[in-house]
This record gives sequence, structure tokens and C-alpha cells, in this order.
Amino acid sequence: MQQNKTIDPGLAGGFRDYLPEDMIPRQKMFDTIRSVFECFGFLPLDTPGIEREEILTGGDPNFRMQIFKTGLREGDEGLALRFDLTVPLARVVSLYSDKLEKPFKRYQMGKVWRGEKPQAGRFREFIQFDADIVGSNRVSADAEIVALMYETLTALNIGQFRIRINNRKILNGLSSFAGYDQALNADVLRSIDKLDKIRWEGVSEELAQKGLTPVQIGKLEQFINLKGESAREIIANLLVLMSESPEAIKGIGELQEIANCLDSLSIPAECWNIDLSVARGLGYYTGPVFETILSDLPSIGSVFSGGRYDDLVSRFGNQNLPSTGASVGVDRLFAAMEKLSLLKKEKTIVKATILNFDKDAEDYCQMIVTSLRKKDIASEIYLGKEAMLKGQLSYAIRQEIPVVIIAGGKEKEKKTAQVKDMRKRIQTEVPFDQITSAVETILTS
Amino acid sequence: MQQNKTIDPGLAGGFRDYLPEDMIPRQKMFDTIRSVFECFGFLPLDTPGIEREEILTGGDPNFRMQIFKTGLREGDEGLALRFDLTVPLARVVSLYSDKLEKPFKRYQMGKVWRGEKPQAGRFREFIQFDADIVGSNRVSADAEIVALMYETLTALNIGQFRIRINNRKILNGLSSFAGYDQALNADVLRSIDKLDKIRWEGVSEELAQKGLTPVQIGKLEQFINLKGESAREIIANLLVLMSESPEAIKGIGELQEIANCLDSLSIPAECWNIDLSVARGLGYYTGPVFETILSDLPSIGSVFSGGRYDDLVSRFGNQNLPSTGASVGVDRLFAAMEKLSLLKKEKTIVKATILNFDKDAEDYCQMIVTSLRKKDIASEIYLGKEAMLKGQLSYAIRQEIPVVIIAGGKEKEKKTAQVKDMRKRIQTEVPFDQITSAVETILTS
Repeated sequence: MQQNKTIDPGLAGGFRDYLPEDMIPRQKMFDTIRSVFECFGFLPLDTPGIEREEILTGGDPNFRMQIFKTGLREGDEGLALRFDLTVPLARVVSLYSDKLEKPFKRYQMGKVWRGEKPQAGRFREFIQFDADIVGSNRVSADAEIVALMYETLTALNIGQFRIRINNRKILNGLSSFAGYDQALNADVLRSIDKLDKIRWEGVSEELAQKGLTPVQIGKLEQFINLKGESAREIIANLLVLMSESPEAIKGIGELQEIANCLDSLSIPAECWNIDLSVARGLGYYTGPVFETILSDLPSIGSVFSGGRYDDLVSRFGNQNLPSTGASVGVDRLFAAMEKLSLLKKEKTIVKATILNFDKDAEDYCQMIVTSLRKKDIASEIYLGKEAMLKGQLSYAIRQEIPVVIIAGGKEKEKKTAQVKDMRKRIQTEVPFDQITSAVETILTS
Repeated sequence: MQQNKTIDPGLAGGFRDYLPEDMIPRQKMFDTIRSVFECFGFLPLDTPGIEREEILTGGDPNFRMQIFKTGLREGDEGLALRFDLTVPLARVVSLYSDKLEKPFKRYQMGKVWRGEKPQAGRFREFIQFDADIVGSNRVSADAEIVALMYETLTALNIGQFRIRINNRKILNGLSSFAGYDQALNADVLRSIDKLDKIRWEGVSEELAQKGLTPVQIGKLEQFINLKGESAREIIANLLVLMSESPEAIKGIGELQEIANCLDSLSIPAECWNIDLSVARGLGYYTGPVFETILSDLPSIGSVFSGGRYDDLVSRFGNQNLPSTGASVGVDRLFAAMEKLSLLKKEKTIVKATILNFDKDAEDYCQMIVTSLRKKDIASEIYLGKEAMLKGQLSYAIRQEIPVVIIAGGKEKEKKTAQVKDMRKRIQTEVPFDQITSAVETILTS
């Protein structure tokens, strides 16, 4: 099947490979996230990468996100790749509503795809790791999500971070507070959401373009700049400022309740704050919203975000289930950790390599590797091109393998092997039935 | 964001969801496979689901597999979803040829997509779990793959299975052995590959339609029916039968060498056999080929397959790297285990639920759940609609949660909790600082 034409092995833009030196620490990230999510009582779920397009867009002709369409032939219609794991969750709880106990607490890890412009920390394909509680309208459920975010990021050892909390109900109250038409509100929020990137000057300019008067913009500025020494003080000040908007008052009450819960859940006050500029782009949020900024790399954006979405499930039928959740952007977090030098690249997981330089002793090497594997020691026989012991040893050194075992014809005859501690550079000849324990001793020393 | 139109929550045909009762055992499967693969010294790799289409087809205009094309807009060209993890691996070793130490032993788990006709155990999206050795032409590398297949399936506890081994070089020698044009060989092999499904009558009929003479078909039948008491006897008989085909002789020698290696690697003789009808559909195989049949459910097809592909990497440049590997069809295996009742569905991973029926004690419940989680006990506060203790207890019973903790105002005041062993139906009141150990005692009893 020799090919005549050579194919360029490059990837399409916005996609990336993870080689072992990245995947080894990345997989540790996945394992850590999963263990925290399971500790919080979330159950695993898996759904397909391909969904019917209508599921994803909700049939909304103004759907703004760029999604990847797919089909077997060009022009096939109706299928697309999921852009998050939340919409598929809403579909699942509708489709299996009789089967799933409520509240349904699930976690899911999976690839999602978006037609984003490729830039640092943003890819067209990336892994999300989500936890959601479906079927609970309790504010303590929102607090559980914030606690989960805190415990996960702490377990990941990513340095200082801050969870920013806001409430969509407060933002929905802005139109009556500032005196503009509620129909403009989604557009206004989109501008406010850019505060981190374009500062207040940029935001106010956009608001003026959208037709807001200087007085209205001034009231919004007053809101954005509302300060306080503590969450409690901000809440008190907000209650005064927005006292005439019933919906905002409701949102402020929820903020208060979350703050109380976070105390009981032992979340340190310095790890979260109320940030009135947080809006979150996705349209489905209805109550508390969360995002997380790394203190040493705020520019990379939020690495763990979410909020309450009480109306999304009703898209798929009469049943409505109030829901809340959050999503870790694993690839963005990984990119951040790379940038902050918090990531330890690792060449290998192999603990022992058996050199393989004497064809007549290959069977003996296979017996040795089998005995190591029976004891769960990750091990391999050298299978490469180097025929000589020296070349094979260089491979083991380059790969930073901690133990090398040398077994040629002489050792086979004596039923022994040379076990070499590569860090201490000590080589010992041991009988066959002591090879495993000799390796274990080196690995635990 | 209330929707006016209700969207049907159904999946497209050929796709499936995995709810927690399936995902809990499925994830155990993944963990088991991964731990065996790592024990054999394979390193993790991840590549995108979306590749340039040319990468996948090799630019072959006769490419037979139905692949999912994708793009941001209808009519976008050039991107497609991967149909396996082997072709992307070949791309990776070409693209990063300077960076990757050879032999490159990697494992990868990921979704792949194929436009198959939906049927039992066959999906349009499924997970593969692959292990490959790139850059080794040693037959002992092929034997390592077979040993890995054996150890993985044994660890998965799937009952009896048989790994069928053949060699493409022997199959390539068939044209000279039976006296037909080598150009017909791929087509002949495709018919032989159907032996399990359509028996010899069906195969011979197809061969006649393809223009083979009765004498040629007779020689092929003689080959397919070649028998022997043991692998060694089959090999001896093959050497006689095909003595005039040098390529076949080479393949037979490799079979012999694999057989020797499998002895040294402690693979029981009853778990594998030589099966001359195994061809494997994919075009890229060049040497040993493997597939695995479950003894209690042969009809579901091969659950773990692979082989040697020495020319695939050269598709992407001058460099050529002889390679061998195999792939577990996790979803097919899962479907088989379901059918064979080998799968224990599990409702939950939650070990303790704290009932939450007294609003004034919710903060106290949060303190309890935090202390349990600090000890890595998967636990949750009840967050649902049931206001009364009784309704919440029914939830815990339906979800088969082993420990329930009851803490209302009275317990909060006394700083105690009722810890209930749900299996033994024993309830004990313990002080706050003994709750965790009381739960641990129940869980380990």
C-alpha cells in the first residue's frame, strides 16, 4: 500500500496534539478533577459529540455561536458538533425524564467544538469538564457549585485564583434602574461583559453607540463601580442603590444567601468576591453566575465558569427543571499552567526497561517483564533499532527511566539479572525471583 | 429565554447516551484498560477529533470508508472526523519526528466516527482504546501487543475469549499459491474476511463471481481448512502447503516467532489460535493481524483487533516507521457484556447523603458534608423538592445510598447527627467530630 503522493501531516488551524510529556500531567489534571467531582457526589454521564443541530441552537434563527456542521456527504443537513455539555444535559434530562432521579447531579468530560478565531488559550476543539445539578431551585445548590469550583482549583494547585460571583436577576434589573428599554438589555450586557478587555471607556463608547443617553450610561457606571470592603457591604450598598427594582432585589437576596452558604462550606473569603460586571456570554443563564480568574494570569480569561439556568430544559418539552452548574475549560487551564510554569512535563510513566541486546536471551527478558507487570510495575522490553547495550542504555537515559535491567545470555544461564538504579548509578546482580523486589526497593527509595 | 417552539430531545440514529448506571461500570472499564496499558509501558497521547480529510483518506480516491465531513458552513471542504486512532498516530509520528523517541509506544482513548448502518453493537460514534508501538520491526513487538490484548481482556473479566492470529504476508502469498492475478487479491481477501458471517458457501460463491476458477477456489478452500492439533502443527502443515511462496514462508516464520514469544510471556495456549481466515478489513496491515472473539458471543464480532502496518507512516513523508498495535472497541465490548449479563449496573457512587429538611440547620448540614469530603467520602446534601424527612429518605433508598445522615435543629443545637446504616437499618446518634469515623466504619463493615 505504498503511497505515491506524500500527505502534509499538519493539523488544521485551531487544533492541537498533546504529546506524552503534556498528556501525562494533563491526565493527572483529569484524574484530580474527576476525584473532586465524585467526592461532591456527581455521577458520570456520556453523550455523543454529534447532535441534531436543532438541539444545539434551540431552533433559534439568531443563534450566534459558530458551530461545526457535519454529515456523511457535503450538503447533508441537520447534524452538528456540540459546543458545550450543558445543552446536551438538558436534552438528556428531558429524554429520560422518567428514568433519572431528581435532583440529577452529573459530571461529564468531553470534547466540544466552536468556530472561534484561534488565539492563545482558545482552540476550536477543547475539553470541558462540567458538573451540574438539575432539578433544584435551592440557592444552596448554587453554593455547592461554587464550593466545587473552589475545591477543584485548590486540588489542581494552580496558584491564587478568585471566583467572581454575580446574579443575572440583578443585571436584568438594570434597565429599570438606569431607565432604558428592557429589549436593549441583552445588548447592554454584552458590552458590560467586555469590561476586562476594553475597560470602561470602551464599554461606555459601545453603550452610546447602542443609543443609551449619558444619564443612563452614568447610572450604569455608578452600578459597575459600586464598592464595599466585603461581600456583605457590597450587598448592603446594592440593596440601597437598586431598591426600586424587585427583580434586582431578588438577585441581591440570592447573593446574600450564597455568601452565607460559602461560610458554612468553609470557602475562604479571599477566594471569591462579588463582581457586578460578570454577565457570562451564554444566553441561558437566569440567576447566579460564576467565573474564575487566575490572579497571576487574568488575561487568559475565565478558567471555570457557570451559573443557574432555570429555563433551558423546557426547550425540550413541558417539563421544566431549575438547574445550576459550572464547567472547567481544561485546555485553557492547561495553557495557563504552561505559561505560569506550573506544569511539570514528564517524559514517561515507565518505571523499568529491560534491555534486549542478545537474541538468545529475548525469551528470558520476556519472562522478566512479565514478572514485573504481575506486580503492577510499568515496564517494557526495549524494542528499537539499537542492537548494542550502549545504544539501548542511552535510550533509557534520554527517556529518564528510573530502573534498567540487563539480562543477556550469561544472566539467562545463571538465572539472574543486573538491576541498575539509574539515579544513583548503582548496578546489582540479583537472582530471577528477587528482580521484582529489587526494582520496588529502588522505586521507593 | 422561554422558547416558543418545543424541540424533540431524540438523538440521531446510530448514536447513544450513557446514563450514570451505565457510565459507572463503563468508567471502571476505562480505568482497567488504562492501568493495563500503562503497566505495559504505553504513554498517553491525545489528538483532535477533527482532521484534514486528506490525512484520513491518504488522498485515495477509492477510499471506501464512510467518514463524517465537517465545517463551519454547509459546503466547507477539507475537514472530517477521524474514523480511527491509527491514522492520526501515523500523522503525529511524522509531524513530531524529531521530538518523539523511537520506538514510540503510545496509548490513546477517544471517540471515532463512521457512517456505519446502525445495528447491535455497532454505532456511528464509538470509543476506541488503542495501544501501538511505532518504530519497531521486531516480531517480539507484535507479541507484546498480543500479550497486552490478553492481559487487558483478562483484567476486564469478560469471560472466555480467543485471540485469532494470522499474517498478511501469508494472505498476500495466496495469489501465487492458488494461481490467480495478484491484482485480485484485495478483493479475494474481502470475501474471505466474511467467512464468519456467510460461511464457505457464501465466500466461494463470491469468489466465483469475482472470476476465480473452481480449481483456484478449491485451493483457497484447502488453505482455509488447513487444520492442526496445535499452533505448531498448523505452522508445520502451512510450511508444506505454501512452500513455493517466499512471502508466505516469511509470514509463517513470523507466526512461529510470535508463538514462541507468547510462551515466554506466559500467555495460555487456550486463549489464542492461528486462524487463516482473519484478514482485517483495513488496507494498511502488512504483517501479523489479530482479532478477538468472545466465546459466548462470537456473533458480535471482534472486540479487540489490530496488526502490523509497516507502510502507513510513509504516507506523510520520506520517513518510514514499522509499526504494530491494536484497538479495543469499548462500546462493542460494553454491548457484549450487557448481553452476557456480565455488567453490574450501578445507581450511584455517593456514599453518604445528608438530609436537608430544616432550613435553620442547613448551615450545619453544610459543615457536616464539608467534613466528610475532607476525608474523601463521596457525599452530598439533599437538594431536591421534598421538604419532609420521609420523602428525602425515600430518595436515598431509591438511589441505594449506603449511609444517610439526619441533622435538624435539635442535632444542630446538640452538635450531633443521626448516622444511619441503610443496609443494616441501624441509626446511631454521634457527636459532630465522630460523624466521619462513624460513616467510615459503616462503609468498611
